[in-house]
Amino acid sequence: MNRTSFELLILGSSSASPTSSRSSSAQLLNIAERFFLIDCGEATQIQLRKFKAKFQSIDHIFISHLHGDHFFGLPGLLSSMHLLGRKQTLTIYGPENLKSIIEAINKVSETRLNFSINWVFTKNQGLNLLFEDKKIEVYSFPLKHRIFCTGFLFKEKPLPRKIDKYLLKKLNISVADILLLKNGLNVTNQEGQTIQNKEVTIDPDIERSYAYCSDTIFNPKLKDYISNVDLLYHESTFLEEHADRAKKTYHSTAKQAAEMAKKTNAKQLLLGHFSARYSDLDLFLNEAEPIFKNCILAIDGKKIKI
Amino acid sequence: MNRTSFELLILGSSSASPTSSRSSSAQLLNIAERFFLIDCGEATQIQLRKFKAKFQSIDHIFISHLHGDHFFGLPGLLSSMHLLGRKQTLTIYGPENLKSIIEAINKVSETRLNFSINWVFTKNQGLNLLFEDKKIEVYSFPLKHRIFCTGFLFKEKPLPRKIDKYLLKKLNISVADILLLKNGLNVTNQEGQTIQNKEVTIDPDIERSYAYCSDTIFNPKLKDYISNVDLLYHESTFLEEHADRAKKTYHSTAKQAAEMAKKTNAKQLLLGHFSARYSDLDLFLNEAEPIFKNCILAIDGKKIKI
Repeated sequence: MNRTSFELLILGSSSASPTSSRSSSAQLLNIAERFFLIDCGEATQIQLRKFKAKFQSIDHIFISHLHGDHFFGLPGLLSSMHLLGRKQTLTIYGPENLKSIIEAINKVSETRLNFSINWVFTKNQGLNLLFEDKKIEVYSFPLKHRIFCTGFLFKEKPLPRKIDKYLLKKLNISVADILLLKNGLNVTNQEGQTIQNKEVTIDPDIERSYAYCSDTIFNPKLKDYISNVDLLYHESTFLEEHADRAKKTYHSTAKQAAEMAKKTNAKQLLLGHFSARYSDLDLFLNEAEPIFKNCILAIDGKKIKI
Repeated sequence: MNRTSFELLILGSSSASPTSSRSSSAQLLNIAERFFLIDCGEATQIQLRKFKAKFQSIDHIFISHLHGDHFFGLPGLLSSMHLLGRKQTLTIYGPENLKSIIEAINKVSETRLNFSINWVFTKNQGLNLLFEDKKIEVYSFPLKHRIFCTGFLFKEKPLPRKIDKYLLKKLNISVADILLLKNGLNVTNQEGQTIQNKEVTIDPDIERSYAYCSDTIFNPKLKDYISNVDLLYHESTFLEEHADRAKKTYHSTAKQAAEMAKKTNAKQLLLGHFSARYSDLDLFLNEAEPIFKNCILAIDGKKIKI
């Protein structure tokens, strides 16, 4: 059986200002057909259209911090959702001040959205559960940037054990006991025999995870929050030749991102948030790969299966 | 001699929401190398880059009203101007509430722009002079929309009379008298003879003008403000088949825009602000041309010489 989807679409990969080929920060994560928009730089709605993502399916938007390249696309996206007749509630997770900005904009434009916004404010400490349903958990965790900023951790919940349906029938196990088996328990069949869980089940797929670190200075403390993820997005605004600038502006270099992937034992590293000064992005891979082998670049429009 | 430039670049031509081929409202007007940005919908900075316009040359931005499709690109443009090292003052003309929105955004992002903004607030009545220098005047005038909204009128000042330099020399006229001649006065030459102005000058080019009507219901009163312009931009959000919708939302149809061009005795009509529901824009021309012959469509990237 195919696993449920866990796929990331890069909508923007630029830092600060967009360039002719790179839009401002935004990503769309699809886990089991839940669509999570992560950051929403200017023109995110245009990128969503360009890459044929249905933005009315987005019910959750996560904003890491209030630098414009991470949220200037939000007012326009909300407006378009409204104009296209959205009714269902949208939940926005982010810094508390975001609410007042959106409300001030709606006030001056005399806009009353057709749908409700459920605001969930991020906090500056620890791993905070923001969202969960039966399949997924999403947490925020603090990043170290010039202003209050959080990363986001998306995790599948532990999956149920996989059942061999042929054996179920053969061993005369009641359908009512399937849930017990999925949860790893033994059962008694209709002849009164005890069936060991392992006789009829196999281990489930290991739950997958994605960590998003939008804007941050190199910070070894991240290890406490996001160890062992399948994919780590870590900003690499600069190359080492501009390490001083990175430090001064609370950003990271490609080398530092690679070191963080190593420290947190990530399986794969996604580099992004590239400064407009660089046109050849291979330089980022060249710098990161000697430290952490499994690196990829965030390119607008790229899809990454986790 | 070539006339000084008077050229309009269409940056966006969509209403409400951008489409895959039409960005939100924005135009760049170059009159004698003064660059005026008119409205600034989302992604205007991206359009400026795409069409190779130097946005650091823009010293004046005019915002017609505070619906998002006319100003959501402004925070990002200001941020990029700042990041690219702008120092010179920028003047923004628009509704008073715009200032508080921009200031609130700069506050939450802890941004202190490197350059000053000179705010000039538009008023809801009459023709108001917003800007003038030796060559140009810019006025606002009221439009009738759901919220406070103004149009903008850009006019060259009357040009000086053109002088025949060969005759100047031949008739022994002092260089010091050139200004008098340019202003239409007679002069006395170095032999004491009176030289009639018309002997050595010819009529100047007629001063050109452009009127911008962003969002408005059909309003015959416009005639009082913008008669005889060389180019009239008048929104045509809808076709006549949706005239009811136009009226309800305080917008116009292509037919109404054409009627306004006729009533105001414009030389040419530029249609734009097209609703995303229409993909074939020729329908707008088909509707407008039987009423007013000289029509063109606003297409992103199009340059129009006035």
